[in-house]
Amino acid sequence: MAGVRNSNREWIFAERPEGEPDMDSFELRERDIPDPKFGQLLVRVRYLSVDPYMRGRMRDTESYAEPWEVGDVMHGAVVGEVVESKSDAYDAGDLVTGNGTWADYSLLDADSVMPVDPNVADLPAYLGVLGMPGRTAYFGLLEVGDPNPGDTVVVSGAAGAVGSVVGQIAKMSGCRVVGFAGSEAKVEWLTEELGFDTAINYKEVDDYEAALDDAAPGGIDVYFDNVGGPITDAVFTKLKLDARVAVCGQIAHYNDEEVATGPRKLTQLIATRAKVQGLLVADYATRFEEASEQLGEWVATGDIAHRETVVSGLENAPDAFLGLFSGDNIGKQVVKISD
Amino acid sequence: MAGVRNSNREWIFAERPEGEPDMDSFELRERDIPDPKFGQLLVRVRYLSVDPYMRGRMRDTESYAEPWEVGDVMHGAVVGEVVESKSDAYDAGDLVTGNGTWADYSLLDADSVMPVDPNVADLPAYLGVLGMPGRTAYFGLLEVGDPNPGDTVVVSGAAGAVGSVVGQIAKMSGCRVVGFAGSEAKVEWLTEELGFDTAINYKEVDDYEAALDDAAPGGIDVYFDNVGGPITDAVFTKLKLDARVAVCGQIAHYNDEEVATGPRKLTQLIATRAKVQGLLVADYATRFEEASEQLGEWVATGDIAHRETVVSGLENAPDAFLGLFSGDNIGKQVVKISD
Repeated sequence: MAGVRNSNREWIFAERPEGEPDMDSFELRERDIPDPKFGQLLVRVRYLSVDPYMRGRMRDTESYAEPWEVGDVMHGAVVGEVVESKSDAYDAGDLVTGNGTWADYSLLDADSVMPVDPNVADLPAYLGVLGMPGRTAYFGLLEVGDPNPGDTVVVSGAAGAVGSVVGQIAKMSGCRVVGFAGSEAKVEWLTEELGFDTAINYKEVDDYEAALDDAAPGGIDVYFDNVGGPITDAVFTKLKLDARVAVCGQIAHYNDEEVATGPRKLTQLIATRAKVQGLLVADYATRFEEASEQLGEWVATGDIAHRETVVSGLENAPDAFLGLFSGDNIGKQVVKISD
Repeated sequence: MAGVRNSNREWIFAERPEGEPDMDSFELRERDIPDPKFGQLLVRVRYLSVDPYMRGRMRDTESYAEPWEVGDVMHGAVVGEVVESKSDAYDAGDLVTGNGTWADYSLLDADSVMPVDPNVADLPAYLGVLGMPGRTAYFGLLEVGDPNPGDTVVVSGAAGAVGSVVGQIAKMSGCRVVGFAGSEAKVEWLTEELGFDTAINYKEVDDYEAALDDAAPGGIDVYFDNVGGPITDAVFTKLKLDARVAVCGQIAHYNDEEVATGPRKLTQLIATRAKVQGLLVADYATRFEEASEQLGEWVATGDIAHRETVVSGLENAPDAFLGLFSGDNIGKQVVKISD
């Protein structure tokens, strides 16, 4: 069994956070490198994904997925190299991506991984535009958002892994695209490199409704929400007739200890007949191949630009995760584990 | 020109209400009986409809319809007898229903009215189950709610004109039906005469979530909302995967002077992928005939029971309207204007 290290470091979920998580929720431990069982691959992790949805798994409440148990190894998407295969489908040396662990080495089920082609895109892209976030953008916008040419599409968390892809697919769909993001650097990236028509730095704007009156004077046909909170409240007041709202994430609320209150929105839905629908990419599992092919093609042609924010070192994985809640990342946040 | 009276009393919208409306918003005046123009019918009003949506027209804000102007005659659905026709489609003596005025006599456009058959149902039913409320229930439940056999359907405002029809169509669709209503008499009507599986008297219950745990232990597939507020908040916490919410009315909020706050619901939508959609019956105008035929058949066969609460006298129309907000009506609230 090959490997640069003789042992395996792995992050443990050590304590359920209350409110904003901190380092107390994580504990690094050292174990032997595991042996793959039949059908498994031992993968040396190159890049690890940290995602906002992980905050939900830290809660002791049932949602669309089982909560993590204290003491579990942290799970997440990884890209890595097969070092030992107990499957006919992959050989040592193959690059794959799948659901692994926050560790140097991770055991993956061969039938749940996908091959990675470094000629299509750099490895980190397989955790972003060519991974779950890209597929979320693809299905969420096209199936729930249902954009038509000429529509005005607003995206919150626009400079994140999902939002940045949503906006670009919306542009290709012939829409006018407005993004909300949290820094001037992000605004510049969105408008100058990704083709967003307008981007609003919500940290510099007091009145989101007035900002939307400027940015989307005719109203909003599609809202792709990654954030929630006051941005979403403002968008709802500008929805047009038959508008569609895809609720992908609510990162503004993931650290809330109690259900937050805000303006009631249902009366607005009667006036607009808007449709508001929650979105989970796993519902489209049977169509992942379609999405991956299309996204790969768009990345190859340059129709979709992408960016990853890379933090180096497994020891810094919790920091990278915590940084998601302060918006440290532009594009997809990944952690580089090994060369 | 025939007519019992020599002049026409009509209610004027006298003042925009703030919060709960009262008699100050209404003024009765007397005018000559009007002459129909080409294409119009002069109708002696028999029954007049008062509906919660009218509160929205009293606001000086654009919604799905133009607001009423102070000084306008109050408008609403009527059933009456043609006393003079300037249309080939109807003769004097015909019974028709359409959008008229709160008055003894009303001018209706012949091409916007529908004939009324007193052999199918009594005249007031044409303002309820066979009128706009019935069609709202029909399209709202079947198109937005999309009920499947075995689904659990919850209806708020269940003993109202719309809710009572929704529940009965849901039963015919093979669903388990739970209604919220505001008195023991309403609860009894729902469960003993309309076939609701359970009804909850929300005025006697403190904990709506606990009541739903009893009434809908497996969760809720379809929610038809006429009310909003705390009942709706509780229902959202019990939605099942892929649930549908049809937002038909929010009577709990129609008298709010500012947008009310309440628990934020969008995170729940991610977990359930529930779809929440506003509903306006006018969107289904091209299919009104289908709905009227089907509802007429159900009424004729007794598959749908209906009830009207009748207040007598044009002079009492504002009282009947104001009573909607305290839940005075069981089934459809109408005002009897003439024999």
